[in-house]
Amino acid sequence: MGETHEARANIGVVGLAVMGSNLARNLASRAGNTVAVYNRSPEKTRTLVADHPEAGFIASESVEDFVDSLSKPRTAIIMVQAGAGTDAVIDQLSDLFEEGDIIVDGGNANFHDTIRREGAAKKRGLNFVGAGISGGEEGALKGPSIMPGGSAEAYATLGPILASIAAVAEGEPCVTHVGTDGAGHFVKMIHNGIEYADMQLIAESYDLLRRVAGHDPEAIADVFAQWNEGDLESYLIEITAEVLRQKDAETEKPLVDVILDQAGSKGTGVWTVQNALGLGVPVGGIAEAVFARSVSAKPGQRAAVRGAITWRPDIQKPSSSFEDDVRAALYASKVVAYAQGFDAIIAGAQEYGWDINKGDIAKIWRGGCIIRAQFLNRIVEAYDANPDIATLLEDPYFARAVTDGEDAWRRIVATAALSGIPIPGFASALSYYDALASERLPAALVQAQRDFFGAHTYRRTDKKGVFHTLWSGDRSEVQISAE
Amino acid sequence: MGETHEARANIGVVGLAVMGSNLARNLASRAGNTVAVYNRSPEKTRTLVADHPEAGFIASESVEDFVDSLSKPRTAIIMVQAGAGTDAVIDQLSDLFEEGDIIVDGGNANFHDTIRREGAAKKRGLNFVGAGISGGEEGALKGPSIMPGGSAEAYATLGPILASIAAVAEGEPCVTHVGTDGAGHFVKMIHNGIEYADMQLIAESYDLLRRVAGHDPEAIADVFAQWNEGDLESYLIEITAEVLRQKDAETEKPLVDVILDQAGSKGTGVWTVQNALGLGVPVGGIAEAVFARSVSAKPGQRAAVRGAITWRPDIQKPSSSFEDDVRAALYASKVVAYAQGFDAIIAGAQEYGWDINKGDIAKIWRGGCIIRAQFLNRIVEAYDANPDIATLLEDPYFARAVTDGEDAWRRIVATAALSGIPIPGFASALSYYDALASERLPAALVQAQRDFFGAHTYRRTDKKGVFHTLWSGDRSEVQISAE
Repeated sequence: MGETHEARANIGVVGLAVMGSNLARNLASRAGNTVAVYNRSPEKTRTLVADHPEAGFIASESVEDFVDSLSKPRTAIIMVQAGAGTDAVIDQLSDLFEEGDIIVDGGNANFHDTIRREGAAKKRGLNFVGAGISGGEEGALKGPSIMPGGSAEAYATLGPILASIAAVAEGEPCVTHVGTDGAGHFVKMIHNGIEYADMQLIAESYDLLRRVAGHDPEAIADVFAQWNEGDLESYLIEITAEVLRQKDAETEKPLVDVILDQAGSKGTGVWTVQNALGLGVPVGGIAEAVFARSVSAKPGQRAAVRGAITWRPDIQKPSSSFEDDVRAALYASKVVAYAQGFDAIIAGAQEYGWDINKGDIAKIWRGGCIIRAQFLNRIVEAYDANPDIATLLEDPYFARAVTDGEDAWRRIVATAALSGIPIPGFASALSYYDALASERLPAALVQAQRDFFGAHTYRRTDKKGVFHTLWSGDRSEVQISAE
Repeated sequence: MGETHEARANIGVVGLAVMGSNLARNLASRAGNTVAVYNRSPEKTRTLVADHPEAGFIASESVEDFVDSLSKPRTAIIMVQAGAGTDAVIDQLSDLFEEGDIIVDGGNANFHDTIRREGAAKKRGLNFVGAGISGGEEGALKGPSIMPGGSAEAYATLGPILASIAAVAEGEPCVTHVGTDGAGHFVKMIHNGIEYADMQLIAESYDLLRRVAGHDPEAIADVFAQWNEGDLESYLIEITAEVLRQKDAETEKPLVDVILDQAGSKGTGVWTVQNALGLGVPVGGIAEAVFARSVSAKPGQRAAVRGAITWRPDIQKPSSSFEDDVRAALYASKVVAYAQGFDAIIAGAQEYGWDINKGDIAKIWRGGCIIRAQFLNRIVEAYDANPDIATLLEDPYFARAVTDGEDAWRRIVATAALSGIPIPGFASALSYYDALASERLPAALVQAQRDFFGAHTYRRTDKKGVFHTLWSGDRSEVQISAE
């Protein structure tokens, strides 16, 4: 460090906490990359360089030196805490970068911020790319799933670099140009929302196997390991089995039994539901998962209710097919959660003008990220066969999947309701499916109520137009408009 | 009109569409009020004045004349479309009003806008009051429930005027000073969210009585009318019975059968859930109601799914107690929806620094508004007995209500799941209750998964501190912090 910097790094990383360090090491390990690194406090930089001489990092202790060490177009990935920290680094780089240079935000930014930042950078002639990166610390090091937004011009330079470090699934790197400005962070947000739903459904399955079937965590680990051989094969099912096998060294109990049952969250699940609501997309599976975590994290309310009520639901005797039923309910509910997630992507793309290829999103989620699963190949196939399906549930494979699982799904929801096992995810998904499948919905009654108290009008099944009944008059019907 | 205005009106109304006209007439009909009126297009003003000579309106065709016609402190209620229109009127009045004058926004404003507007008005020495008004057109005319925010100083002048026109319940006017700045519009938003949940639960009850019990709308109207004699007595139950009795003159069918089953919405339900999510409050009952409306309003997806699947759930034979079971499920789910709504009020008050009296909110909802119900007296009593309960479900009356209804509630959710009737509201409420009541939740598994893939750490049940298992190392546990 301290030497005069030649501009010879094709990529730089700013922010060298675990994610940033791992991403920098990943970049350095791939042919063709020379990696510049910078961190606000130089100790982290020095440690990284000392620990990894094999990486050949070009390290700087000032932003100016860091920028000088980058070849043009300069390309730097920011890996700092989302929020004000990101803006500060963007400001520093923007002052030193020149036209055509590329600033990449690899953090978990809110896509609204990304849209704003991209617009500001563009005014200065700079490229700004919000790139969602999933896979945690290990993914950052060994190959994450990467969801970059921004301009096509930026992607021409950045794409090959990201492709060099991304996970590989079925021979293809798990990265694609998602769309302009905030598209990448939007899709990453939806990824995380689906992850919430996936985890909640697994948790409900575990709870049923534990409290209704009476299995211990070790036996349930075996069930999950077996499920991981079939349609449900996925990273989350795999690690659930591993987690359930883990013993606490101190108490010799299953670790899951000594962990406090209050789930935390980092906000992307909340964002997903807030944005889906704004877009008019029902995402009950994700919403119930977010709510389930927040209920769990309210020990005061939980204790108060337990103290106030007499709660003794009858745990139902599990049927002989109980484990298979739970698996089927899990799979069907998972199909619904993904259908809802892709609906949110479609609605977001429409609202914000992004040209998102849905099949490509399913492809880049097949490796590297938390929700990676065999299952995503079915989504790729569905959108390959018909990119314009109205919902994933319309695709023949998924339609058959929910139809085949339907009876089991119903039995599980009924058994859980009678047994006092909270299954907000399973139940919400089943009700969503039943609502889509019902010929008539009681929404007609809701419209009539709205017309009664608020003159909100209604449409009719038998002719065009908008109508209102004179509820506080003679109760005749008047036509408000022809269309 | 056109005469020189003496400043003799104690209250003015800007915006004379139906809600504004009715509110102005209501004000004029009460002793002590002299009402100034103004509308951008003077035709509406002329019509109102001509149709209602008994009101003694002081009408103006310019904002300047309108302002001159108000006695000090000038007090004007804006009743225009929420959004940009409101800001335009506020700007006009702000330029003409003087220190201590009071601008009231009686529209359905977003409370974030109200906070902003109150801050801007305060800088100019003006009082700004965001006042939620519920009750629709009829309520505006005959007595609404009013939820004003803003300063105590403004309420000293405004309170008696609002009290003169508000609905009266148990001898008390349905108005209270909710809290500062946006508190009134926040509480109105939650009111509307609860209204969504209430309507959805009624719709689910109707659907079950229709499709499982096989009753026709007329018979179901009888059931609702009977329910309206008991614990469920409320405006929404009452109008449901009336709606279900209504025949379409043209087809002679029940009106509910010719209304298109696609429910609309105006946005306050979405706002409620978005804000509750931001506040960390689970509001599954409201969220599922919002989602149920949006599913219904997607005819393309509904047709696509019906075309793709084979859907033939077995409608279950209703038990002999089926109607009572539905009533009990409805009541228990309603208790949950209100408990969640009040949790959101408490969280909002804490976040935004409002000193909200929860019992007073329940009181002013007893009359005038859409969710008015006997039931609210129980909430008043609960907060009278102990304002610091952790949840309404802790109150002995409500704890008994859910416990008494529990078996029926479980049977209904099970029956609906098996019968293919979407009951997202009932099921979400039951799962929420079961989550609060469960000694242990599978949230422990979720925490373990999060620690596995993201090093998010966990707490233990048996000692203090934050811990992490080295999942990709030797799987020993390390303590991250002592507290």
